[in-house]
Amino acid sequence: MSVAPDTLPRGGELPASDFIKQLIAVIRAEDSYGSWEDKSDAELLEEYIVTAEERREMPIMGDPDPDLLWRVEKFYDAVALLLEKRSGARAAQMSKIHHEGFGRIVLLSGRLVVLSKHVRDIHRFGFESYDKLAEAGEKATQDAADMVARFPDAAQA
Amino acid sequence: MSVAPDTLPRGGELPASDFIKQLIAVIRAEDSYGSWEDKSDAELLEEYIVTAEERREMPIMGDPDPDLLWRVEKFYDAVALLLEKRSGARAAQMSKIHHEGFGRIVLLSGRLVVLSKHVRDIHRFGFESYDKLAEAGEKATQDAADMVARFPDAAQA
Repeated sequence: MSVAPDTLPRGGELPASDFIKQLIAVIRAEDSYGSWEDKSDAELLEEYIVTAEERREMPIMGDPDPDLLWRVEKFYDAVALLLEKRSGARAAQMSKIHHEGFGRIVLLSGRLVVLSKHVRDIHRFGFESYDKLAEAGEKATQDAADMVARFPDAAQA
Repeated sequence: MSVAPDTLPRGGELPASDFIKQLIAVIRAEDSYGSWEDKSDAELLEEYIVTAEERREMPIMGDPDPDLLWRVEKFYDAVALLLEKRSGARAAQMSKIHHEGFGRIVLLSGRLVVLSKHVRDIHRFGFESYDKLAEAGEKATQDAADMVARFPDAAQA
């Protein structure tokens, strides 16, 4: 008999993923006082999970709180670091988020915008499962790497 | 007999400059209630002037106030609009300014970073004269136009 979905841990199992590893490293690097040492990797990422049910209960408009903006920033920091490992391009993050939750996030490498993301409901930022989180991070990294490959001169300028 | 420097108006005379015209248009466009209608163009720009003496009296570190950040934003909005008139490239501004006054301001057009400015003492943002203000705006616009000419494909991507 298969396990019913609601008995699985929230977010599912943590997949083996370079992106997930990078994100965990980015987050653990900020733990200067060791307060998260006892947390498992899945616990560390649990706030990245927003299930379909939780999403339905969220308002359409909402002010993003600082913790959420922090999580978004770490997500794109992990993309930037994984991009650097894979393509050698060093990218810096910039964002312009209106307090109502819409805005734009970019990763810049040299003179190139390697990733550009317009967001409309950032207060709902989250993923149904760790698999989906890994998939989104891998895709963003791949898109950025493709852009570096397309405009290598601008990325090095 | 020539006029002694200290009898000249603060900031000097307003030069004939495309950038100054654009900056005034940007600022007047925000005057929804007509409160600045009676102000001359020079008065409208007077807070862009920081004389050498005023600068000496400013602290080395300082928190930029919202009015100052607004002026910086209008300055780069004017650069972006003048760039569009001259090169056809539409650029959007993004900035990441730490509350202590350092950070980075960029203009992005397509996938290209047409202008990138690292700032360290933004709370002292200002120009000795309207001539210097015009010169700085023209130079920033020219640098951005040069970058568009160098990487036209990325700018159109």
